[in-house]
Amino acid sequence: MRGAVLYAPGDVRVEDRDDPKLVEPTDAIIRLSATCVCGSDLWPYRGVEAVDGPSPIGHEYAGVVQEVGSQVTTIRPGQFVVGSFFASDNTCELCQAGYQTACVHKQPIGAEGAQAEFLRIPLADGTLVATPELPPDDLVPSLLAASDVLGTGWFGAVAAEAGPAKTVAVVGDGAVGLLAVLAASQLGAERIIAMSRHEPRQQLARDFGATDIVTERGDDGVARIKQLTGGLGAHSVVEAVGTQESMLQAIRSTRPGGHVGYVGVAHDVELPGTELFYSHVHLHGGPAPVRRFLPELIELIWNRRIDPGKVFDLSLPLEEADEGYRAMDERRAIKTLLRP
Amino acid sequence: MRGAVLYAPGDVRVEDRDDPKLVEPTDAIIRLSATCVCGSDLWPYRGVEAVDGPSPIGHEYAGVVQEVGSQVTTIRPGQFVVGSFFASDNTCELCQAGYQTACVHKQPIGAEGAQAEFLRIPLADGTLVATPELPPDDLVPSLLAASDVLGTGWFGAVAAEAGPAKTVAVVGDGAVGLLAVLAASQLGAERIIAMSRHEPRQQLARDFGATDIVTERGDDGVARIKQLTGGLGAHSVVEAVGTQESMLQAIRSTRPGGHVGYVGVAHDVELPGTELFYSHVHLHGGPAPVRRFLPELIELIWNRRIDPGKVFDLSLPLEEADEGYRAMDERRAIKTLLRP
Repeated sequence: MRGAVLYAPGDVRVEDRDDPKLVEPTDAIIRLSATCVCGSDLWPYRGVEAVDGPSPIGHEYAGVVQEVGSQVTTIRPGQFVVGSFFASDNTCELCQAGYQTACVHKQPIGAEGAQAEFLRIPLADGTLVATPELPPDDLVPSLLAASDVLGTGWFGAVAAEAGPAKTVAVVGDGAVGLLAVLAASQLGAERIIAMSRHEPRQQLARDFGATDIVTERGDDGVARIKQLTGGLGAHSVVEAVGTQESMLQAIRSTRPGGHVGYVGVAHDVELPGTELFYSHVHLHGGPAPVRRFLPELIELIWNRRIDPGKVFDLSLPLEEADEGYRAMDERRAIKTLLRP
Repeated sequence: MRGAVLYAPGDVRVEDRDDPKLVEPTDAIIRLSATCVCGSDLWPYRGVEAVDGPSPIGHEYAGVVQEVGSQVTTIRPGQFVVGSFFASDNTCELCQAGYQTACVHKQPIGAEGAQAEFLRIPLADGTLVATPELPPDDLVPSLLAASDVLGTGWFGAVAAEAGPAKTVAVVGDGAVGLLAVLAASQLGAERIIAMSRHEPRQQLARDFGATDIVTERGDDGVARIKQLTGGLGAHSVVEAVGTQESMLQAIRSTRPGGHVGYVGVAHDVELPGTELFYSHVHLHGGPAPVRRFLPELIELIWNRRIDPGKVFDLSLPLEEADEGYRAMDERRAIKTLLRP
């Protein structure tokens, strides 16, 4: 099969790779209908994270089940499925508490490399959620978005306790931040402030339910949020970047007693304890337990209540993955969908 | 009047100070029935926090109202009252949300110096809660404890979401940690693990409801907590120290999806973002909004349902405040009550 391999920072190649095979009796093999490039793929692509030799890459997927292992009981060949970037058994105490990305048997999908034609999914019964039937083509991008960015933005909004009567601010205008806006809207937030200085992203944020746009960043951004919230700060702030500046911007934009939901993968972040202590905020986040939300998200997409696939503003054949990375790296694209 | 003044690290003197007077029409003056030394008073006493010239000290108080300003409407002379270490209006949006220590009009009581015979309380209507009638002497220590340590331990347990079916661990065996044990018990926690290596404190923890004692600290303490919780960590962990080691011990003792409530005043704490991200914990804390809990705590004490005053294992005349500080500094006493 064909699949993307990251050789070094800036060097993604699509090449022949071995077809994945069932390894464990709980595995499934899926043929990908679509895959995509994640903001977190840009960390190694940019050399911010070390690249460990040529390695398959990608962890977002939606597609049709080809084959299942002997112990797979609920997932069947022919089903269209979506799963999260961590395989999980969905039965352990942590999964049952809604933290499938901390499952005691979790396995990263990234190690398998989802930017490819086929993909092995461990713990298929726990990991995959099937759609009611095969989806029409136009729903595939949104279903793919549910695999990570939508679920991650949703978790950010849930962790920030977005809801009715709340003012929600979102730090970060990447796909996750934009979908956190959509999530906050679906969760009933009264006012949603998107922090973005890029006009096309501002427009998409508005499409997803943002009521206000703040273009300032850092201390100026915090001051603007305070100004918009009677001097107190937002009730809920979603952090969708992962840098020291964005974390502090999120914490400082939140009122005492408010909630920060942080889903940007942390890079070189050190939170000052004294400031955190006196900030009085709630802090929660981490790798989104997307699996918790998948049934609900798939239903919303299936019934065309939400259209998260709009974050894909570039769609390329898998063979052109390198251009997909470049376009995101240079911020020419919000998010690149790849068609195997 | 007589009052304690901190001159320099290790140098607390009780001397003549001016009687406090009404300054604002919303003030009250109280005669203290009892006051005490807080663990946080030890930070400047030990020189860990800078001492700014001779300054009155103390912020915990319970006593009888002597006089009220012209705009005080609910608090009356002759009432026995308890208040928190921050004066608050109890009407602003933050107070109404339960964060009175972040009140938009908050004023620190510490600046007035509560280790004294009399004390001025700003914003008396918002700050003070009166008992149903004058309390018998034996209830005074417990009512005094409600002013800070009980309310702070209680907030730690609430922030950690201690409750039914939860395993709660408490890091720190000072008065706040011990009262977090009591709070977790009152909140219905199934199992309460006190981390302490001091026998008298272990005993008090058991009296307050601890079901397990862990004597190990740091990584060993974390390993022991994991061992006691099926490898997962506690659902709820209260941090009641405020150092880097204790914060990391608390975070690492918490299962993914669990809650850390931190009430130890942070000193030189820097939380590593990547570890926090992958820990999947909820983090909440800060200066406890004791006022939120005071009506409930006073009722529990009044009805003799709880006896938090047991944390006072040393009781001295105010004149001997210096010995009260020394005994706590040397860990000969858990907490010193001072009788003006």
